[in-house]
Amino acid sequence: MNKNLVFNLHIPTKLLFGCGELRRLATENLPGKKALIVISGGTSMKKYGYLDKVVGYLKENNVESVVFDKILPNPIKQHVMEAAALCREEKCDFVIGLGGGSSIDSAKSIAIMACNEGDYWDYIAGGTGKNKPVEKALPIIAIPTTAGTGTEVDPWTVITHETAHEKIGFGCKLTFPTMSIVDPELMLSIPPRLTAYQGFDAFFHAAEGYIANCATPISDLYALEAIRLIYKYLPVAVADGRNLKARTKVAWASTLAGMVESTSSCTSEHSMEHAMSALYPELPHGAGLICLSQSYFETFRNDSMKRYMKMAEAMTMEPSKRPSDFIDALVKMQKACKVDDLKLSDWGIKKEDLPEMVKNAKETMGGLFQLDPRMLTEDEILAIYEKAYR
Amino acid sequence: MNKNLVFNLHIPTKLLFGCGELRRLATENLPGKKALIVISGGTSMKKYGYLDKVVGYLKENNVESVVFDKILPNPIKQHVMEAAALCREEKCDFVIGLGGGSSIDSAKSIAIMACNEGDYWDYIAGGTGKNKPVEKALPIIAIPTTAGTGTEVDPWTVITHETAHEKIGFGCKLTFPTMSIVDPELMLSIPPRLTAYQGFDAFFHAAEGYIANCATPISDLYALEAIRLIYKYLPVAVADGRNLKARTKVAWASTLAGMVESTSSCTSEHSMEHAMSALYPELPHGAGLICLSQSYFETFRNDSMKRYMKMAEAMTMEPSKRPSDFIDALVKMQKACKVDDLKLSDWGIKKEDLPEMVKNAKETMGGLFQLDPRMLTEDEILAIYEKAYR
Repeated sequence: MNKNLVFNLHIPTKLLFGCGELRRLATENLPGKKALIVISGGTSMKKYGYLDKVVGYLKENNVESVVFDKILPNPIKQHVMEAAALCREEKCDFVIGLGGGSSIDSAKSIAIMACNEGDYWDYIAGGTGKNKPVEKALPIIAIPTTAGTGTEVDPWTVITHETAHEKIGFGCKLTFPTMSIVDPELMLSIPPRLTAYQGFDAFFHAAEGYIANCATPISDLYALEAIRLIYKYLPVAVADGRNLKARTKVAWASTLAGMVESTSSCTSEHSMEHAMSALYPELPHGAGLICLSQSYFETFRNDSMKRYMKMAEAMTMEPSKRPSDFIDALVKMQKACKVDDLKLSDWGIKKEDLPEMVKNAKETMGGLFQLDPRMLTEDEILAIYEKAYR
Repeated sequence: MNKNLVFNLHIPTKLLFGCGELRRLATENLPGKKALIVISGGTSMKKYGYLDKVVGYLKENNVESVVFDKILPNPIKQHVMEAAALCREEKCDFVIGLGGGSSIDSAKSIAIMACNEGDYWDYIAGGTGKNKPVEKALPIIAIPTTAGTGTEVDPWTVITHETAHEKIGFGCKLTFPTMSIVDPELMLSIPPRLTAYQGFDAFFHAAEGYIANCATPISDLYALEAIRLIYKYLPVAVADGRNLKARTKVAWASTLAGMVESTSSCTSEHSMEHAMSALYPELPHGAGLICLSQSYFETFRNDSMKRYMKMAEAMTMEPSKRPSDFIDALVKMQKACKVDDLKLSDWGIKKEDLPEMVKNAKETMGGLFQLDPRMLTEDEILAIYEKAYR
């Protein structure tokens, strides 16, 4: 329990967790009679039969559905606007996000734009957004098929303004899912490399939320448990994707890390990564975070010593004497997951883009820099990017 | 994480926690324009100025209020019915429970009866209750001034049918408080003995919820943290009631233990205690639990060995090798809180009442016996009562 003795806790989402729980869609009391199902433009939701199952269970529950299937890995505003128009046209009264964070985040933003006028960016705080208040949204159901974002239990949605190159998070009380179903059986087909990227995303939600200066006793509890579980089970899930126990533990850790995002916050590591993938949409979010992580966490090693040692202890289950034990354990986990060799240049990022990224990170998600253990200078931010570039 | 890999998590209550947070009543968006404030028949809410503060903050927020001030330590159905009638008459549109568990539980039951016909016992499952469904209730705000019940973050309300001698818990989605304010400054005036009784109540919510066969990964996380904090800080709060740090830690532990009640369940120790205080309303709930606890937990020592050792480790911060380490730590904490000498006979309970209590416990809250690590025989239940009687 840290010094922040005044805090809020409010996660109104009803979470159904467990293998086979997807079928609860057929029997639960749902928030509407016609769903817009939001999925990615990829093939996996169809190929693995997840979409058919969802449509079928909804039918059993006397709920109609329409599918929007264009969402990109880094989801864009244009698709939010397009799907919201479809939602109105088809008179859908709730939105289901099925897939990774991109589909679920899009579902949240679509739920807003299905009942609000104008452009999505009118409601965004940061960048060129106009920060208009959001007073209504359709109910949202989240069904993650990856273990990473935690968006199923937080209000956040991250969308990219594709022409302004701004990737910005938004959230309010209305963007908490009404219900979320986390069924680890839907995660068995994720390939090893994506399993690692996604798992590290969850890990950083927990670790950033734990060192954030707005951490609270409840976020600490969620964060350390998520950190412990991911360290122990992510390498197992990467090595053997069919290991349902490891998948389940990592899925639960990811949900816990989402609860950290609802009770504490990400820090500037996330701002820096968003700036990267806003400019290079091919770069997976988790991969970007992995590239940044070692230099990011080394920067604060002496500013949050006790918390670094607590994280190290949660990971290694050994007493820790130095904050760098955490960095060592982080690197060890990256090696175990075979992602220790990632560098920004792998995605064609150019060294001369780095100063632009510093600027973008500060402009679009500058608020998170105020939640770091101490305020970074622009030189320090550039140095973190440079080390990640290699 | 235990073997229950399928579980729900849904605690829709918005929790405001921290010293001085009571004043948020003046600025938060409240669920109505006229509150029925439910307090006990004792003097403390008025004497310490808590009632005046609540009424004043509501006024600042343009909310009127009416006070019902008759609630007994073991709250009775008659007062629920009386206050619900007052609520309708005065056209109150939400209910505030201010005080200990008795006032907050009553507020929940009043919120039901303010919008439902007939008698409160019509809606109760168990005993002579008629188990009618509850489909509406007024919004509830909980403001605990004790650290013990956890009712501020769970749906449960325990009311005694004073003529049928039935003390039965009830709860549904509608009886979760909309908002709860846990302000440890309101707890500074609790006398040492009551601090101990209430703190042990919270402890048993956590410990029972941890050994219950319906425990889940999230309830485990809440339970072990509550157990750790209570073991460390309850003796401090008992010895020095003005120690705000200890009060804050115990208050947070109690809220966590309430979250255990929302995600796992109490076990039959609570059924047995309810049977006792249904027949002897003078017996404080926490004192009754303390009397039962040693023999209750000894009974399951070999049925939940790993979990007993985990609880012992959370308490003593030492590796545990035997389940009885938990019983030893429990007794040590009882000594540190000066409640190790309690026995049922202190409250005038007669030995010949014990078989009647076995019957009452099974009839009124029999369901909790099914959540114990194994099913107790009636002889075993009687033996637990006899050891508590001494």
